[in-house]
Amino acid sequence: MKQEALRKAVCKVNRDIFSTGLAALTFGNASGVDRDAGLLAIKPSGVDYGDMNPGDMVLVDAATGAVVDGRLRPSSDTATHLVLVRAFGGIGGVVHTHSRYATAFAQARKPIPCLGTTHADYFRGPVPLTRMLTRDEVDGDYETNTGRIIVELFEKESLDPDDFPGVLVAGHGPFAWGRSVAEAFDHARALEEVARLAFDTLLLRPDQGSLPGFLAEKHFGRKHGAGAYYGQTR
Amino acid sequence: MKQEALRKAVCKVNRDIFSTGLAALTFGNASGVDRDAGLLAIKPSGVDYGDMNPGDMVLVDAATGAVVDGRLRPSSDTATHLVLVRAFGGIGGVVHTHSRYATAFAQARKPIPCLGTTHADYFRGPVPLTRMLTRDEVDGDYETNTGRIIVELFEKESLDPDDFPGVLVAGHGPFAWGRSVAEAFDHARALEEVARLAFDTLLLRPDQGSLPGFLAEKHFGRKHGAGAYYGQTR
Amino acid sequence: MKQEALRKAVCKVNRDIFSTGLAALTFGNASGVDRDAGLLAIKPSGVDYGDMNPGDMVLVDAATGAVVDGRLRPSSDTATHLVLVRAFGGIGGVVHTHSRYATAFAQARKPIPCLGTTHADYFRGPVPLTRMLTRDEVDGDYETNTGRIIVELFEKESLDPDDFPGVLVAGHGPFAWGRSVAEAFDHARALEEVARLAFDTLLLRPDQGSLPGFLAEKHFGRKHGAGAYYGQTR
Amino acid sequence: MKQEALRKAVCKVNRDIFSTGLAALTFGNASGVDRDAGLLAIKPSGVDYGDMNPGDMVLVDAATGAVVDGRLRPSSDTATHLVLVRAFGGIGGVVHTHSRYATAFAQARKPIPCLGTTHADYFRGPVPLTRMLTRDEVDGDYETNTGRIIVELFEKESLDPDDFPGVLVAGHGPFAWGRSVAEAFDHARALEEVARLAFDTLLLRPDQGSLPGFLAEKHFGRKHGAGAYYGQTR
Repeated sequence: MKQEALRKAVCKVNRDIFSTGLAALTFGNASGVDRDAGLLAIKPSGVDYGDMNPGDMVLVDAATGAVVDGRLRPSSDTATHLVLVRAFGGIGGVVHTHSRYATAFAQARKPIPCLGTTHADYFRGPVPLTRMLTRDEVDGDYETNTGRIIVELFEKESLDPDDFPGVLVAGHGPFAWGRSVAEAFDHARALEEVARLAFDTLLLRPDQGSLPGFLAEKHFGRKHGAGAYYGQTR
Repeated sequence: MKQEALRKAVCKVNRDIFSTGLAALTFGNASGVDRDAGLLAIKPSGVDYGDMNPGDMVLVDAATGAVVDGRLRPSSDTATHLVLVRAFGGIGGVVHTHSRYATAFAQARKPIPCLGTTHADYFRGPVPLTRMLTRDEVDGDYETNTGRIIVELFEKESLDPDDFPGVLVAGHGPFAWGRSVAEAFDHARALEEVARLAFDTLLLRPDQGSLPGFLAEKHFGRKHGAGAYYGQTR
Repeated sequence: MKQEALRKAVCKVNRDIFSTGLAALTFGNASGVDRDAGLLAIKPSGVDYGDMNPGDMVLVDAATGAVVDGRLRPSSDTATHLVLVRAFGGIGGVVHTHSRYATAFAQARKPIPCLGTTHADYFRGPVPLTRMLTRDEVDGDYETNTGRIIVELFEKESLDPDDFPGVLVAGHGPFAWGRSVAEAFDHARALEEVARLAFDTLLLRPDQGSLPGFLAEKHFGRKHGAGAYYGQTR
Repeated sequence: MKQEALRKAVCKVNRDIFSTGLAALTFGNASGVDRDAGLLAIKPSGVDYGDMNPGDMVLVDAATGAVVDGRLRPSSDTATHLVLVRAFGGIGGVVHTHSRYATAFAQARKPIPCLGTTHADYFRGPVPLTRMLTRDEVDGDYETNTGRIIVELFEKESLDPDDFPGVLVAGHGPFAWGRSVAEAFDHARALEEVARLAFDTLLLRPDQGSLPGFLAEKHFGRKHGAGAYYGQTR
């Protein structure tokens, strides 16, 4: 029953990735985790969004990656999702897209600077960018290593996944996460929105500096933490 | 009964902000004022546009900001709306969006120059840009101070809110107003339209100068004031 | 009966201008002419596209501009349409939009260079750009003078309105025309399409030169004149 | 019966080109080939996408180009399709669009560099760009020569049409192909997607270098060839 709900939520987000234009063709994938059961539900590989039903979501063992239930093969990016879910203990879902502006920053290998309050509402600083994978990492377990360089970056820079609910993989595209797969999707949308605004801002003024730290902190604090006063609940 | 109509009009605009793409996620908010009753109706904080009904609009005392009627908390930007409604006596509604191109100009901290007749139809000069808030203003009553720097700008530059039905808050985004919440929405759309046209124009020719004053005045005058001859009524 | 059909065709295009995004708010207008009857049917001024019906189209005398039939005031741009219809004897309709990229070129005061075969299919050279109006022309009969500087340009440069079915008015936006109001609309769409392609091309390569003349002529000739072989009829 | 299915598939793609915005007005065309019967089904010339039915598709002899069955004249670009179908023995369909960003690269006469994994999933290197046609080639059999310079490029650069399922014709626009007309359409969409991402990337960083070869090869190999592990089948 719980797996039923998880599959349904994961399927909905996989469809929404497509219907909201965050990914075209068969790019992009979403997963949700049930930590008690130790299971990850994820999109099947290379299937058209329009044809997907909850029953097509593949259940894999969150520890080993082995398929537990599902007629189809899981997304080729499953190993990346698993690394993130294991390293970031507080997250309940991961969304990977090829959304237009976030991918452009990833391809241009630029972190997204915090240029406005829209950005500060969601990210507590620039959207971070991984290093490029080495040849050995690509030739080895590529998808696992993609996850590893994300985690490496968060550890090296002491970034909290709650403060930075997404990342750009250099030369590839964005990954976002949240407490649930639905929140991960909201963060993927927010990431694309701040990427788009930063893109336009930098075209108007290529050397635009970041928002002052005190204003960025104010906006992040309006929505997050003990002093939050945005929305209907705390 | 009158409050019923106000809530309905305010709810409609809050929904239209979303459906026309002037804001994504839960960004953006609209309010309308009933000056006789001393009441402001405004969007609840952090609620999805799709889920909003007129009954969800929050009624606050226009003088004190206290909630008069409503099950939900009012928008976190309510204090900004109240400052504008008090300072600009002729306006009946305020619309705040994170619309794409207007926000890009706000983030790039550039007023929008008047480069064409589309702009001159709505704004009697460049769309003005506030200064950045100071640390003290942000740490203090942030949302009230956001309204104050708008009013400060209009006073310092002797701008008439009828001639300039909108403004860019530096590092944040646009606010627009009008005689009613519906007109405020039209002005928010017009502001985004002129921002978009200016953006494209400046990409084609970064040093493009403003429209000659006599042509800009002609277009503004076609729609506003005693000599207006655009539309069906005067 | 014939006026009925004209009003219907003009109303349809005025609605299509809006539904296809060639103009926002109440910008833009279309007209059609019945040369035998000496009548022009045109959009009423400042009316929302969604509310327009064929019966709202205003009939004016093509020679004098006097309203012959209609409950509403005609578009404030009627005088511009009339100048074009009188000067360009072969046209049956005029469409004025504030379409995004064509307006950007008009505001940047750049003719649209012929950079590809899409352009050459519709325009036999760069999309021409008028000069700016003088103060006297603006303070005088503004809308008539807008039409006059278009005609002046075509005469001075010996341009054939059949070879160049549209123009950019500097600091304002595009006007297009055709043998009927429906064809004028197709040309307004084509003008926006070639403006968009030229915009993107110039961002990629600001000094991109024009298509070789022999290739441009080939494409124009595929669709126009005695040697045309595109489409189902000649 | 088989021709019935071919016409239906070709008609569907011709409609999809329009509904997905890969071409406006009457630009763009798709064809599919039945190699056993030696027949090509192609869009009629200059017909609105909305009005097209499978019965309108024109059947031509793949060897001679003569119309075998059809009430309408075939696309003016038929000769280009035929050259491609004859030279590239493994393809089953060709799609020509004027899609926005791919056409911008064609007009700017720049190959599309491989800047990210999205690109590498579909093309095994930059999207190739033809030379400009000479005056003689344009004045002669223009459409046939358009096909010839594509084939010339692939031969000169030793490009495999399976590794590069599309091309940019300088000053014109993109052509894509695939094992079927449906796959050709997927490749036309992918080509536009990678063009769009490259466009944005180059605006952010004009001198952005290509993806390392080992990463590009990895992604292409995930989807193509003996080692493919993307999707549900191999």
